[in-house]
Amino acid sequence: MKKILVILTGGTIGSKVEGKIINTTAASSYRLLQLYNEKYADDTGFEVIQPINILSENLTPVEWGVLCNCLLELDFEKYQGIIITHGSDTLSYTSALIGTMFENCSIPIVLVASNLALGLPGSNGMNNFRNAVCFIKSSDINGVFTIFENNKGEIPVYLSTHIVESDPFTDQFRSFTGKYFGKMIDEKFVATENYPCLMESDDISLAETYHHTKPSDISLAQKHQYPAKSDDILWNGNFDNKILLIHPYPGLNYNNIDLSSKPKAVLHYMYHSATACTTDGYSIIDFAKKCNDLGIDFYCASFKNKDAALYDSSAKIVNSGVIPLYNISCEAAYAKLIIMYNAD
Amino acid sequence: MKKILVILTGGTIGSKVEGKIINTTAASSYRLLQLYNEKYADDTGFEVIQPINILSENLTPVEWGVLCNCLLELDFEKYQGIIITHGSDTLSYTSALIGTMFENCSIPIVLVASNLALGLPGSNGMNNFRNAVCFIKSSDINGVFTIFENNKGEIPVYLSTHIVESDPFTDQFRSFTGKYFGKMIDEKFVATENYPCLMESDDISLAETYHHTKPSDISLAQKHQYPAKSDDILWNGNFDNKILLIHPYPGLNYNNIDLSSKPKAVLHYMYHSATACTTDGYSIIDFAKKCNDLGIDFYCASFKNKDAALYDSSAKIVNSGVIPLYNISCEAAYAKLIIMYNAD
Repeated sequence: MKKILVILTGGTIGSKVEGKIINTTAASSYRLLQLYNEKYADDTGFEVIQPINILSENLTPVEWGVLCNCLLELDFEKYQGIIITHGSDTLSYTSALIGTMFENCSIPIVLVASNLALGLPGSNGMNNFRNAVCFIKSSDINGVFTIFENNKGEIPVYLSTHIVESDPFTDQFRSFTGKYFGKMIDEKFVATENYPCLMESDDISLAETYHHTKPSDISLAQKHQYPAKSDDILWNGNFDNKILLIHPYPGLNYNNIDLSSKPKAVLHYMYHSATACTTDGYSIIDFAKKCNDLGIDFYCASFKNKDAALYDSSAKIVNSGVIPLYNISCEAAYAKLIIMYNAD
Repeated sequence: MKKILVILTGGTIGSKVEGKIINTTAASSYRLLQLYNEKYADDTGFEVIQPINILSENLTPVEWGVLCNCLLELDFEKYQGIIITHGSDTLSYTSALIGTMFENCSIPIVLVASNLALGLPGSNGMNNFRNAVCFIKSSDINGVFTIFENNKGEIPVYLSTHIVESDPFTDQFRSFTGKYFGKMIDEKFVATENYPCLMESDDISLAETYHHTKPSDISLAQKHQYPAKSDDILWNGNFDNKILLIHPYPGLNYNNIDLSSKPKAVLHYMYHSATACTTDGYSIIDFAKKCNDLGIDFYCASFKNKDAALYDSSAKIVNSGVIPLYNISCEAAYAKLIIMYNAD
């Protein structure tokens, strides 16, 4: 039986409470495996690595680079699956990143986190980890997933490019599609029937053609079962080129955005009807033009159906030359662009 | 029987589809009332005004000023209640603003919107409006509420300071508390048992003491049943002073924020555990210090319980002198600050 590779990255699931402060420590990271073996004592073989060890809010594109390089250097065929333990605060972002980079991976990769430090009453960390193990051993589905128990005691399995940020009051995660990809019931995976198939890339061929391995080692592409097309866009191994992310709100003043550091692209996430303000003095269109003049690409998300009627403001925005992204969460759009703009 | 005042502001509920473009027109605004009277032909008397007529994404603090002044000039005692029709894109923001300004109002105020233009199959606009009428006529509760039918056919009633933005894919609204304040069932209001009571203002006395009327006419305060305390902070009648709102994401570069326009305050909404990045080069603390040096107040939200253990990064952030806001949605925090920083 092949082993499961556990990649520890820190977060609450690898943290300890000392006094009134919660933080990662070298020792607390490995406690998860120790507790698992004490509790389940099954035949699961683990191999454990820890390329980074931080609270997930402190994660930057630098750590993303470390994590992605770590994954790309592995021989996936050695493992039954991979579990990445992570903090919950940026879990949806890292899920989107790994889900985009490794969408065609040949084994299951599952991200998990914990609401509270392990051992505290109500902590779901061990249960999330246990179910990730069970998912890998029994589901026979490859791809990237995220598992995080909700406050009803359900264990949802998310497509990792569809999980979106946790609510600040209820601490509950949601799926971009409004549905879970599936659930773990009695440690078995049960898929959601008619899970929506999103036509994310309806209008940008770019997003469909880039792939995810290092240019120096194209054979890894086959190993990870990526299609190794000649027009593949390959990640350059770092996330140096930045994407500037903007959320609208009434009164957003685009003059507060300094473009002198020349981000490679702007991702403007929009109101739910795919709109933003076009009123003089607050206009997204004027800002998009300014970006265009500076050579900064300008993406807007999330549009729904390119044949649908558009609000007057949306039509004006699209006609101004911005690049629309369809049916994509903020996290997944950001992940796509950060990979794409760090490709050779 | 007193009349219901209907304040039309535009939005989809007042829009018309022409070809493939949806926009507000003068005529389409009043269609709602015409259709209501044709469909229900009951004894409800309406008075209708239209202080603004725009798609809600185009709403800025200028239009908020017009709307609030319009409300403050009314004699509430003349009406059984007020319905504000609005677009869905910024419905949660205007709901938060009106809910904060008029939290102690002497009559019910209900905001409604529509997913699709009236008359289109699946449009919920008329049903939302009808239920707002029924809520006002039968519930006997004063305050500010928002009604918007969900995709299960339920008619939730939100406390208007608790409704948060609609999801971009499912177009469903949510409550900050994870629960509806109540629902309309067979056109009657049914309250949710044990609806959470939030201690929003636990740590900032400011937020508890400001009130909402024009300094020039303090008698309005009594008319609207506001407590007219001597330490009331009174709105100055405009929203000229801006609040800069920031959402975190991995890789957020604070150097992209230009403070030369000197916003009065920054509202930094945080990850769900009340954290943000403290890593060198990406640190919220360095940015908060820069704001402090420029005399810009710095608020962080949403913290949960001031006695709970804090993540190491949160503790560092709080200790750096930022002002924490407790148990408050992004929209409500923004509304509070924009009112507070436009007070005399």
